[in-house]
Amino acid sequence: MYDIIIIGAGPGGYVAAERAGKMGKSVLIVEKDQLGGVCLNRGCIPTKTLLNSGKLYKQAKNSAPYGVHAGNVSFNWEEAMSWKNEVVKTQRNGVSFLMNENKVEVLKGFAELLEGKKVSVNGKIYEGDSIIISTGSAPFIPSVPGADGANVLTSDEILDLEKLPESLAVIGGGVIGMEFASLFSNLGIKVDVVEMMEEILPMMDKGHARVMRREMKGINFHLSSQLLKIDGKKLTYLSSGKEESLEADLVLMAVGRRSNTQGLEETGLDIHKGKIVVNEKMETNLPGIYAVGDVTGLSMLAHSASRMGEVAVNCICGVQDRMRYNAVPWAVYTSPEAAGCGLTESDAAAVGRKVKTASVLMKHNGRFLAEHGKSAAGTCKVVVDAETDILLGVHLLGGISSELVAGAAAMIESELRVNEIKQIIFPHPSLSEVIRDAVWAIV
Amino acid sequence: MYDIIIIGAGPGGYVAAERAGKMGKSVLIVEKDQLGGVCLNRGCIPTKTLLNSGKLYKQAKNSAPYGVHAGNVSFNWEEAMSWKNEVVKTQRNGVSFLMNENKVEVLKGFAELLEGKKVSVNGKIYEGDSIIISTGSAPFIPSVPGADGANVLTSDEILDLEKLPESLAVIGGGVIGMEFASLFSNLGIKVDVVEMMEEILPMMDKGHARVMRREMKGINFHLSSQLLKIDGKKLTYLSSGKEESLEADLVLMAVGRRSNTQGLEETGLDIHKGKIVVNEKMETNLPGIYAVGDVTGLSMLAHSASRMGEVAVNCICGVQDRMRYNAVPWAVYTSPEAAGCGLTESDAAAVGRKVKTASVLMKHNGRFLAEHGKSAAGTCKVVVDAETDILLGVHLLGGISSELVAGAAAMIESELRVNEIKQIIFPHPSLSEVIRDAVWAIV
Repeated sequence: MYDIIIIGAGPGGYVAAERAGKMGKSVLIVEKDQLGGVCLNRGCIPTKTLLNSGKLYKQAKNSAPYGVHAGNVSFNWEEAMSWKNEVVKTQRNGVSFLMNENKVEVLKGFAELLEGKKVSVNGKIYEGDSIIISTGSAPFIPSVPGADGANVLTSDEILDLEKLPESLAVIGGGVIGMEFASLFSNLGIKVDVVEMMEEILPMMDKGHARVMRREMKGINFHLSSQLLKIDGKKLTYLSSGKEESLEADLVLMAVGRRSNTQGLEETGLDIHKGKIVVNEKMETNLPGIYAVGDVTGLSMLAHSASRMGEVAVNCICGVQDRMRYNAVPWAVYTSPEAAGCGLTESDAAAVGRKVKTASVLMKHNGRFLAEHGKSAAGTCKVVVDAETDILLGVHLLGGISSELVAGAAAMIESELRVNEIKQIIFPHPSLSEVIRDAVWAIV
Repeated sequence: MYDIIIIGAGPGGYVAAERAGKMGKSVLIVEKDQLGGVCLNRGCIPTKTLLNSGKLYKQAKNSAPYGVHAGNVSFNWEEAMSWKNEVVKTQRNGVSFLMNENKVEVLKGFAELLEGKKVSVNGKIYEGDSIIISTGSAPFIPSVPGADGANVLTSDEILDLEKLPESLAVIGGGVIGMEFASLFSNLGIKVDVVEMMEEILPMMDKGHARVMRREMKGINFHLSSQLLKIDGKKLTYLSSGKEESLEADLVLMAVGRRSNTQGLEETGLDIHKGKIVVNEKMETNLPGIYAVGDVTGLSMLAHSASRMGEVAVNCICGVQDRMRYNAVPWAVYTSPEAAGCGLTESDAAAVGRKVKTASVLMKHNGRFLAEHGKSAAGTCKVVVDAETDILLGVHLLGGISSELVAGAAAMIESELRVNEIKQIIFPHPSLSEVIRDAVWAIV
């Protein structure tokens, strides 16, 4: 008998386990694969490690304007992959350490949820006062002819690629698709992106997404284009009612992810469109059973899963808490980077909310100019409530956006108003000043 | 007759002018040298531009662990200087544009403050309803024999250096001294730092400063050492009562700055220890006369000067505001970077304030590990009030600390408590997560 049994040790599950352990609960966490889940093993961490290598390569070749000259710059994929594997292993050991430190019991195996808050793992039954389901998600493969070809990979397999291809087609211009497109393009590989919607990165400010595409000069974008079939290296897609085709050595299928609900369908859990339904306390319809992370489909981000895990644990422990989605930051580690938090202008329009917006160009920021030159694109756009002046959204494109957005999340979560943000002192010269400058530009 | 006359167009003056212009005031700004002041012309901006070049050079040589190999990496000082000059010119044009846009009248000349809120510039008298003095500061040259030698420079002159020296001695381990020491060391030049105090960077957490010195492997530190004389390339200093000496081609004198109060001594202004005394509204003892920035000696940072300028303008315009110093961030753009905001543990001890602290190592952060490797130093330490759990200080060493500290300033300024910060969602994987992790480590 455990206080809490957690199914799945990704960022939802292992953070929940850590927090619950810290609060003195007896915790069992069951993982069918490896500690850290997709994020650590086949997602955020390995991707960002490779992206960093790609950025270093691009930078070493392009630092002449700053007085730095390098001859014969070369990229060694095997070394980059080996460093990526090392980072993943180190981080996984870190999670294992955290579990030990917080007296969390870790069990390898597939957990089957039974009635009465019991789970069966490797033929043995375990019982918990509460259960947290954090089974995550997996790449979705569309039913397109040829999608099972040997040269068609998902993000899972491409992270084990032994040799760089000459060309890559990415199906899907979401975060996963765009990050790999940017990585391979930075390494000098021909990249095509085929996206069904009329713009990439749907959570992004529309204007920013347009600029981002323009900045990714090495990538051919095929928007409003639907993949019809893959025939070896030939991809056929429908664009404005016309069949078009392109060639690529390798195809990355990145059209989305489906929540992992296998084996949960017959448990009585309320599952809607393949996702477990939860309330703001992360409670499912079954008493004592919680669900967090990608399996809920509510916010497919590692840090959302972690926060949901914390909320579930707090609710189990009687600490008041609830999950909010208005200040969830996102970041894309492409070149250029982009990040954002909260409402975009079009989100606001879609729900009829009256807002004011303002934008500033990063090239007017001293540090951005010094480090990125005169022609690099970069923008910060803020969205505030038209009546109360409360900050609702911050949207960044360029520079080290991914590291600025936590500050924005703090301001949005704290419901700061324009006048309050104007009183915060930002360090000079730093790129972070663009947030303040955009807020000052609100009229 | 102007609503406001501003003396000095550095970050205190020009920001005050911009804000006042936006509020519809008629503004005259008088500058004896160039728009942008020390910060833009001989301080923050040129230094950070050169530091970036130095970091790119170091990075191009050291990216092999990430799979990136560059042969024959070389540094061209002239090109780096020319880019630095271009950045300064562009930013200066930006300030000029801002002045025009906000209908601020710009006058070149030395302003002499007369009685009755009048100033004399180039023999002509101008009158203002209010006066803001933002005359800044200048490098202080200690009265040491040989300090007037041809190879002894201040930060003003070293930014015009035509040719790299073979070795550099930096007198003073404050921000200016350490940034130049780091720049030249990154470029492969032998650097010695002579500091009178027992530690560098006095505003820094003591433990962090120690680690920082250890990380700056190319720099020889001489702490608790007092410079006695300079004789050409030979510097003699006193260390533990013993005379020691070192040799350096070039000497950078960076022992501090003195406020520019020349010509103000006879005006009736309350000047204490060479600094103009002001209250929290930036008012001096003379009605209608305000002082902001380095000339007040209260916080010798560009962004403090700007905020003081805003406070002065708000007070002039009848908008409630006051200057606070508890959430002023600082950053040092050395390798590694460091930054901080608010109380350190020793600050708290000095005033007998009960606090709790916690630290996390950046190497446990996924992004830091991926981008900086296993052996890079990095720490985040937080200080919270022992009774209320309100965040009082955040101290960062390593990575892109300078871009994380604005978020910390927002949290400190908003007086967030540990429990509130725990509910903020930080993007994963980002270095910014170290702030959250340090807050979670508070017990």
